[in-house]
Amino acid sequence: MIGRTSAAPTTRYVYDFAEGSRELRDLLGGKGANVAEMTRILGPERVPAGFTITTEACVAYMDADRTEPDGLDAQVAEALARLEEAAGKRLGDAQDPLLVSVRSGARESMPGMMDTVLNLGLNDASVDGLAAKTGNPRFAWDSYRRFVQMFGNVVRGVPGDKLEDAIKALKAEQGVKLDTELDVDALRTLTDRFKALFREQTGEDFPQDPQEQLRQAIRAVFDSWMGERAIHYRRINRIPDDWGTAVNVQQMVFGNKGETSGSGVAFSRDEVTGAPEPSGDFLQNAQGEDVVSGVRNTRDIAELADVMPEAHAELMDILRTLESHYGDMQDTEFTIEEGRLYMLQTRNAKRPAQAAVRFAADAVAEGLLSREQALMTIDAGKLDALLHPTFDPHADIDVLAHGVPASPGAAKGEIVFTAPEAVEAAAAGRDVILVRPFTEADDVAGFHAARGILTSEGGKASHAALVARGMGRPCVCGASALEIDLQAETVRVGETTLKRGDRIAIDGSEGIVTLDDVPLVEARWSEQFETVLDWCDELRTLGVRANADTPEDARRAREYGAEGIGLCRTEHMFMAADRQPKMRAMIMASDEPARRAALAELLPLQQQDFEGLFEAMEGEPVTIRLLDPPLHEFLPHRFEVERQLEHARTTGEGDTDELERTLERVQSLEEVNPMLGTRGCRLGILYPEVYEMQAVAIAQAAIAVRERTGKAPLLEVMIPLVDYESELELMRTLVIDAAHERGLEVGRDFLVGTMIELPRACFLADSIANHADFFSFGTNDLTQTALGFSRDDVESKFLATYLERKIVDRSPFETIDAPGVGQMVRMGAWLGRKTKEQLKLGVCGEHGGDPDSIDFFHHSGIDYVSCSPFRVPIARVAAAQAAVRTAD
Amino acid sequence: MIGRTSAAPTTRYVYDFAEGSRELRDLLGGKGANVAEMTRILGPERVPAGFTITTEACVAYMDADRTEPDGLDAQVAEALARLEEAAGKRLGDAQDPLLVSVRSGARESMPGMMDTVLNLGLNDASVDGLAAKTGNPRFAWDSYRRFVQMFGNVVRGVPGDKLEDAIKALKAEQGVKLDTELDVDALRTLTDRFKALFREQTGEDFPQDPQEQLRQAIRAVFDSWMGERAIHYRRINRIPDDWGTAVNVQQMVFGNKGETSGSGVAFSRDEVTGAPEPSGDFLQNAQGEDVVSGVRNTRDIAELADVMPEAHAELMDILRTLESHYGDMQDTEFTIEEGRLYMLQTRNAKRPAQAAVRFAADAVAEGLLSREQALMTIDAGKLDALLHPTFDPHADIDVLAHGVPASPGAAKGEIVFTAPEAVEAAAAGRDVILVRPFTEADDVAGFHAARGILTSEGGKASHAALVARGMGRPCVCGASALEIDLQAETVRVGETTLKRGDRIAIDGSEGIVTLDDVPLVEARWSEQFETVLDWCDELRTLGVRANADTPEDARRAREYGAEGIGLCRTEHMFMAADRQPKMRAMIMASDEPARRAALAELLPLQQQDFEGLFEAMEGEPVTIRLLDPPLHEFLPHRFEVERQLEHARTTGEGDTDELERTLERVQSLEEVNPMLGTRGCRLGILYPEVYEMQAVAIAQAAIAVRERTGKAPLLEVMIPLVDYESELELMRTLVIDAAHERGLEVGRDFLVGTMIELPRACFLADSIANHADFFSFGTNDLTQTALGFSRDDVESKFLATYLERKIVDRSPFETIDAPGVGQMVRMGAWLGRKTKEQLKLGVCGEHGGDPDSIDFFHHSGIDYVSCSPFRVPIARVAAAQAAVRTAD
Repeated sequence: MIGRTSAAPTTRYVYDFAEGSRELRDLLGGKGANVAEMTRILGPERVPAGFTITTEACVAYMDADRTEPDGLDAQVAEALARLEEAAGKRLGDAQDPLLVSVRSGARESMPGMMDTVLNLGLNDASVDGLAAKTGNPRFAWDSYRRFVQMFGNVVRGVPGDKLEDAIKALKAEQGVKLDTELDVDALRTLTDRFKALFREQTGEDFPQDPQEQLRQAIRAVFDSWMGERAIHYRRINRIPDDWGTAVNVQQMVFGNKGETSGSGVAFSRDEVTGAPEPSGDFLQNAQGEDVVSGVRNTRDIAELADVMPEAHAELMDILRTLESHYGDMQDTEFTIEEGRLYMLQTRNAKRPAQAAVRFAADAVAEGLLSREQALMTIDAGKLDALLHPTFDPHADIDVLAHGVPASPGAAKGEIVFTAPEAVEAAAAGRDVILVRPFTEADDVAGFHAARGILTSEGGKASHAALVARGMGRPCVCGASALEIDLQAETVRVGETTLKRGDRIAIDGSEGIVTLDDVPLVEARWSEQFETVLDWCDELRTLGVRANADTPEDARRAREYGAEGIGLCRTEHMFMAADRQPKMRAMIMASDEPARRAALAELLPLQQQDFEGLFEAMEGEPVTIRLLDPPLHEFLPHRFEVERQLEHARTTGEGDTDELERTLERVQSLEEVNPMLGTRGCRLGILYPEVYEMQAVAIAQAAIAVRERTGKAPLLEVMIPLVDYESELELMRTLVIDAAHERGLEVGRDFLVGTMIELPRACFLADSIANHADFFSFGTNDLTQTALGFSRDDVESKFLATYLERKIVDRSPFETIDAPGVGQMVRMGAWLGRKTKEQLKLGVCGEHGGDPDSIDFFHHSGIDYVSCSPFRVPIARVAAAQAAVRTAD
Repeated sequence: MIGRTSAAPTTRYVYDFAEGSRELRDLLGGKGANVAEMTRILGPERVPAGFTITTEACVAYMDADRTEPDGLDAQVAEALARLEEAAGKRLGDAQDPLLVSVRSGARESMPGMMDTVLNLGLNDASVDGLAAKTGNPRFAWDSYRRFVQMFGNVVRGVPGDKLEDAIKALKAEQGVKLDTELDVDALRTLTDRFKALFREQTGEDFPQDPQEQLRQAIRAVFDSWMGERAIHYRRINRIPDDWGTAVNVQQMVFGNKGETSGSGVAFSRDEVTGAPEPSGDFLQNAQGEDVVSGVRNTRDIAELADVMPEAHAELMDILRTLESHYGDMQDTEFTIEEGRLYMLQTRNAKRPAQAAVRFAADAVAEGLLSREQALMTIDAGKLDALLHPTFDPHADIDVLAHGVPASPGAAKGEIVFTAPEAVEAAAAGRDVILVRPFTEADDVAGFHAARGILTSEGGKASHAALVARGMGRPCVCGASALEIDLQAETVRVGETTLKRGDRIAIDGSEGIVTLDDVPLVEARWSEQFETVLDWCDELRTLGVRANADTPEDARRAREYGAEGIGLCRTEHMFMAADRQPKMRAMIMASDEPARRAALAELLPLQQQDFEGLFEAMEGEPVTIRLLDPPLHEFLPHRFEVERQLEHARTTGEGDTDELERTLERVQSLEEVNPMLGTRGCRLGILYPEVYEMQAVAIAQAAIAVRERTGKAPLLEVMIPLVDYESELELMRTLVIDAAHERGLEVGRDFLVGTMIELPRACFLADSIANHADFFSFGTNDLTQTALGFSRDDVESKFLATYLERKIVDRSPFETIDAPGVGQMVRMGAWLGRKTKEQLKLGVCGEHGGDPDSIDFFHHSGIDYVSCSPFRVPIARVAAAQAAVRTAD
């Protein structure tokens, strides 16, 4: 090995608090960066000293299979020496020991990781030194027993309930009720019992060497990064595994030194409402974990003014300083040691949607933030909660089952199992929840009628989820604990069996199913929210439209601020009860004349639908997609027809011939992969008369509405599933000709464009654009084809495994797959505009309502997104945030 | 309109023969260009003078809704005047009329278009002039009646049979048998009767004005371009509609001027075998159409030496001159007028595969062509015929039904309806044809056992077609006249009903089904073919491998020249009778240990399969794709299980519990779009133990074969259906680890690569390449996903309409969709090589055996294509042709 050296330059793994700042968040973690920042702005006297071991150290530790990287031990030792020097005390000193806390701190705050070990540095010798030095043996022993308890539990996994049982047993022996009633001797006994328990559980003696204590605590923080709960949390919150966590070692200050001491948490504003008064809780004579553990009843922060007015005033002042410094609501932890206030932590406060909106509006009014800054403090994805009723947050709920929170809002009602039952019950004025293993096109009428939808299969991209979100119906999907027996009309959950008509409640924002009659809280659209949305409309450049198929949807969309309809799915019009028989007659027609006859009956109904829609939109643009789904979706299922046929044959009742014809047609329309089959413009090319009827209905409706209201709708006729330039050319000509015969001119009265929803279309977008006045990217189907992922199958079969194995960090149907599908969208946009510089570009589909996807589309030159009406406000906020990000 | 002018510069629409050349083929059509070329090289005395109306004139005529473009009439008149001047005669001259022929002539020779009108210029006056001038009234009247007959039929649509009936009736009246026995008066009467028939059918008198005759004849040529048969032909032969046809007007020469005159066709070599002796037919005292119409028995061209030795010698000389000038076998027409030889046409001869190969080999041996030139005269797509038995070309066949020629070759045998029947019959030494409406994975065993496959549904990309081609079994698909009743075990075709065991014959090259016991002609692999293939191997840069799953396939592949296996589909190994129960046990396993137990039983069988394959390949590379199809393909169909279950329940026979479990599993594996579902590497990620078993089997087989034979196979393990870099990373690690445990090292003993068969993978090929030693583009599935076309559905549902409406000119599953799918392949190739410059790139799938696609892949930087063994020789030729094109 002569001539080679493997010695790398030593990486710096440890920073003193006085060296850091919030800019070093990635390296020092959120807590470490904030403590350093506080040290900088509040002064070292307000923040106990300490140091941070970097996230890089954690990553190196994990990479080396849980081995500390070279140099770490030495750097920790040096930092500790500096801390000891500053504090004038030594860790483990038998006379006057330095005590420290050890806390984890990732880049983003993360539950599931090791929280805190306090009082580290105590042992059988230094506890006496602490007692002597403070003249408070009870305090010393209380600190020691707490340390043994926390260290044992948090660092070495001694079960918490066993430790609690030991306290209970001792209190019973001593005949006391409260921990605080235990005297020094009792605490000494308790400490011994904890140590015995430690030995029993770990096979080792409780470590007396403070250096060893520290080493184990640091390891425990690193290890907790790879703990199951932490991994789970990261998956849900899309935090990469390779961020790692930092470790903060900080000199202890003591809130448990008597009545002039205390600990608490304080928010710079009300954390639930966002109202501009600080809120929080505190306890006198207590350490921090007493406040959060809920063992003792905490007191409101306002009362601190009564017991420690000076500390209270200082705290209020500091909250203002911190909020103004960070430009956001702060969530802090503090300790008062014998009257002196120490700040232990600060971070931007997590808050519910209403508080986020209130803070943003107030912060601008107060001059604290600019509109752009205020806007960026809002999590657009959470705003859903403002638009839907929710369970009363104060209600205590017995959860029957958990499922996927598939469409937000809460609902209560009687269980029904079929769409017709739902329709019937709704007509009779009863509230129902439609409960099915999964749903299909046939069930859509039931969605309208039901208050909410509950399924045992499927995820956020299932049919039930998509349709429910589109209609704004609360929906819980994939509640797999439910065993739904449609034959028996029962739902079994463990021991419980529910029947049709039993009452049930669901919360689609949380994915909860319960039998409790939970009070619902109606959605409130606050003045502040209006204000924020007004800013958004001024700031954003991306248009926001809604997907809407009915006048009711259209009106709601406008109410929520949609600037038009980006996708009207005409097939939904054929699903209505009065249309289905006519639609079926059309499909059953044996030749073109028979098909035309059936279409002639559909024409006035379709025209009437369009008239309603156009009137509701009062001159705003309306994009109408011509018939898209495969025809078999409009026929009954093969099984159903076979059953009916067998019944007819055995009983002699029913039209056997008719059923045989239906069966034959159903079979002839069957496809192995319907998603990749005879649908979209392929239907229009096979049966041009269908698209022709639709074009005529659109044209006649436009003329009728113009005559009636004086407002001509801005029509955009959209041809779906185009692969080839000539497909669009043929269908465009057909539409233009049909409209022309009614006196409408393309370019003047309407546009003809296409969905770009197949990878080939993205590649050939330049030639397709020759025949398109606009593109609308159908990112749902583009995701299905680009990834080879059947939406109906992926979520139920393998998405969970893919998330678990970290192949994807969320469903590509939820947030656009930027490097794949997203790049295809960009390619299509670029090629389309190469042909027509002014080509209008939209996105319809689920991604149009997802904040991250909206940001991507904003940066892709898209003109507008279109989403379900209920997501329009979210899209407005997300679009504005994207614009602010661009300006930055 | 002041200040605006619409006068365009006059386009030149007419060229004299003396002005043209073969370079002007696009403009003058094949015939016009060749006649001009002949005029140039043989001298004007050998080629009757004339002029060509350009294809552009035809296109202008069609564009203007069948109106002659401005200037055309005047240019034709001028050209005619020049022709009259040169000939010293005038069209329609009553004393000495100029007669002309009018012929169509597109860029490519095309049946279905107007062929020829001879003797144009005759009328009631000039016929007498011709009689007087030639002193041959019979000749004059025979020419006139022929003209009226041809003009009436070809230009004005007078039914041919009515005209023929008139001849027959007259001959009966006259008591003569042969046309030549009709005398002048009879011919005059016949001409009158034809004219009467013309009036009756068209409502007009036969045009007496020669200018009008010419105008109508030119129009008729243009119109025939849009005739139904021509359109049909173009669609099949992929000729664009906008090429148009030229019109050739040429001075008549007369083969019917007595015994020193004659007409004939002559090939420069034998047109069936390619042997280097001229062949052809002639007739004395006859015009050209007598030779081709088959009315009279023609004489072999060799006999011309006896009757007109001088003309024969001249003709032989000219054939050599033309062949050498064109560098290809020539197909000529000639006329001898009173001993003087005129050449009327020459063109490259169409020829069957064996003649094409023989010509190419001989032409190089003779020094006529370079190897490169010779190679380019071969139509690679037709070489299939050399590798399969065919119906005896001399046999007279009663066609029972036509279908799609789905896999080449002919076969005879008894009808069977199921795979097990086929296996049983084959075991008993009987030849069978497997007859089914369509086939599925379950039927594959039957393909092995049967001589041929016949289906009533599906096209060239159906399952039956794909599997049959892969195995080299003749197959006729989509013979829709067959009504196959699997229950009754009958096939109805019109009035005929066939039962199991009835004998049937199919020709998969022609798509013919017959009941005749047609003699079959075995395939012969000529010495010349070997020679040509040897050149190809020297010239081509693209590698050629085969898709092979069995040692038998592998041996055939090597015999046909494959340089390795590009795709071994391991799933076919699980379909065999002894594996299926074990495979099912694996799928039915309720947890991983049970699955591993079932896999342990499959391991030795799988290993044995690999050993056979590796031995057969003797050290050539073998690319093995790990399990790809969805698991439900290995289970029985749901209907089948339901039926069995019902039977078991009613009769009490059978294992109800077992059947219920199977049904449950079948249902749980059902997918809405299996093509986009749980398959490919998704299976490997859900059930890593499956891929692990396969990796172990591969490694152990490799070691065993190396030890036994001393030749280590070049292993390439291929992970299918990769979307994400991390999918490949995980599966690659799994394979490497499994192989490493057996002592094999990646890079040294084997490679791990991936199929690129999803659009996303093409976009992310740079990151995917980080974990791949090679890419193999799976263009079948890439076509399905990029176009959103389910192969199983597209051909049966809408491809015919798409061809008819000219949206596509052939199935994208047959020839790669270059602008869409092809560009994705190029993108994937480019990005892959950006990461790894030396990345090996292959293509497997149907396109690997299609000459046009091979040309595309050659120009896309692909290293090799892989196709079914039977297409390997075609691929070798196509690859060499692509290389020659590049060099040009």
